[in-house]
Amino acid sequence: MENITELTELVAPIRDDLTSGAAEIALRAITVFQSMLSDTDNLSPGQVKDILAHTARALVDAQPAMAPLFHLGNTVLFSVKEARTVLAIHEACNEALARFERQLCDSVAIIADHVWELIPAGELIFAYSFSSTVASSLLHARTKGKYFRVLCTESRPSMEGRKLASMLASGGIEVIHTFDTALGLVLPNCRAAFMGCDCIGTPGVVNKVGSWPLAVACRELGVPLYALAGTEKFVTAERLFEFERHERPGEEVWDTAPAGVKVLNRQFELIPFSYLAGLVTEEGILQEKDVEQFVSRLEVHEALKLEGSSFV
Amino acid sequence: MENITELTELVAPIRDDLTSGAAEIALRAITVFQSMLSDTDNLSPGQVKDILAHTARALVDAQPAMAPLFHLGNTVLFSVKEARTVLAIHEACNEALARFERQLCDSVAIIADHVWELIPAGELIFAYSFSSTVASSLLHARTKGKYFRVLCTESRPSMEGRKLASMLASGGIEVIHTFDTALGLVLPNCRAAFMGCDCIGTPGVVNKVGSWPLAVACRELGVPLYALAGTEKFVTAERLFEFERHERPGEEVWDTAPAGVKVLNRQFELIPFSYLAGLVTEEGILQEKDVEQFVSRLEVHEALKLEGSSFV
Repeated sequence: MENITELTELVAPIRDDLTSGAAEIALRAITVFQSMLSDTDNLSPGQVKDILAHTARALVDAQPAMAPLFHLGNTVLFSVKEARTVLAIHEACNEALARFERQLCDSVAIIADHVWELIPAGELIFAYSFSSTVASSLLHARTKGKYFRVLCTESRPSMEGRKLASMLASGGIEVIHTFDTALGLVLPNCRAAFMGCDCIGTPGVVNKVGSWPLAVACRELGVPLYALAGTEKFVTAERLFEFERHERPGEEVWDTAPAGVKVLNRQFELIPFSYLAGLVTEEGILQEKDVEQFVSRLEVHEALKLEGSSFV
Repeated sequence: MENITELTELVAPIRDDLTSGAAEIALRAITVFQSMLSDTDNLSPGQVKDILAHTARALVDAQPAMAPLFHLGNTVLFSVKEARTVLAIHEACNEALARFERQLCDSVAIIADHVWELIPAGELIFAYSFSSTVASSLLHARTKGKYFRVLCTESRPSMEGRKLASMLASGGIEVIHTFDTALGLVLPNCRAAFMGCDCIGTPGVVNKVGSWPLAVACRELGVPLYALAGTEKFVTAERLFEFERHERPGEEVWDTAPAGVKVLNRQFELIPFSYLAGLVTEEGILQEKDVEQFVSRLEVHEALKLEGSSFV
């Protein structure tokens, strides 16, 4: 099936992207829906809806830890549910994609304002991995005139910490960079720590591997750790654990490992809420008790229910 | 001065060795003394003693975190103190070097027997960085018929964890390997953790960077962490902090860091005793309260006193 081949090709770079944050990847996934929608004028409405359902499932499968991909697909599928013509599907889908993109960008701007308050002026702060929300918030604070320095580590194996360091430095922020294991040498000098996250549920937040050691170290040293994320990261507890399906080839970590050495390459982990000083969203700085109400509102489209999410 | 040139050349590989443990490096330092001692037959006893003092200081300066280099030099200098002829210096020095080597090897064998008791049969254990004492102890336990699996991480930036993984695997131990930030994904499955150390004083042990996050994570998860080291690692509190002088070029971590990004490359850190389940030495498994008596016995040769240790 021609569409499936095209879909596989479009989704591959998203599956293999280990250095971008979830919000950033969701913005790129919008273009996947747009591409899949083009050239569907000669199909039936049912066929077009099937293509959208396949696209949504393929994106969720590509990055099962990233909640915004689920919400993007879910929003698109609900938006076209009542459409009866191919034209109506196109209109509804494009409107849903535009709305999703706008919400993502609006969220980042509001979160950046909250973060401005949380950055202690003149101090050193820690930032982990790469999150477009964290990067935007810090650059925004600098632009707004606050002076601070940022300490960030590499985030092996994908080294997306270097991407953060480069981006912040090019925005005029003084950056100190080191490898991940040096956490204990540098974190005692930091007054606050920031990270993004890929999904949020009642048990905690899921983020790039390394976030848990950071969280434990922050608690040990009394450094407040904030997770920054729009509410498009909230998912049910059941879906939250989908991140465990995200396993990459060991060769990406060590391509010449000798016989007898099994190499693990898992990219995400759960950080219980108890380690966080706060979850900074566009709805304010939330605590563990606030999460349930966001999660309980979630409605999941039939095509994305977990029982049926295995995309072949 | 010809001798100084030779000394600089002999010490350089020791200074640049970021993947060997302290005991291993001390064994190689023995050959530096032997080389410096050869071709000294035509010198005066005072000149030969000067060469030995220079050699001892150069070795200590090359790896200020590694206590065995200090003890090796200290032992050599005390051994030749009363010698009145070049021949007597040669004999005393060679005897001291041979004794030091024997003691290092004997210590490792006794420590390995203690470790055998500490490895829970059939379980997964964690080992960090590279320590010849840890590697020998685990291989000895396997040879003695105990079955267990070892989880180890890379130990960025020098990746000496791969050296440990390869050595253990070639000795028939099943190894699971991953990157350092994945500590939180794998440590919960481990029943005990082992590391070497470079020096020991009353404030704690100094070991490769990454040991502190490991120690904090072990305590958080209730995994007992043991440091393995012969008593040649004991130093005064003052000398212990010499490890802070060991700073490497940032380019070794990130050779293309953009302007505005300062790259830190520090290799050692202090782990307070409160994080350790025990310090496994050839004198038994010691606790914090036992350390003082070992440290108080230390006698430091004039040439290695800290005031005079800056070697040019």
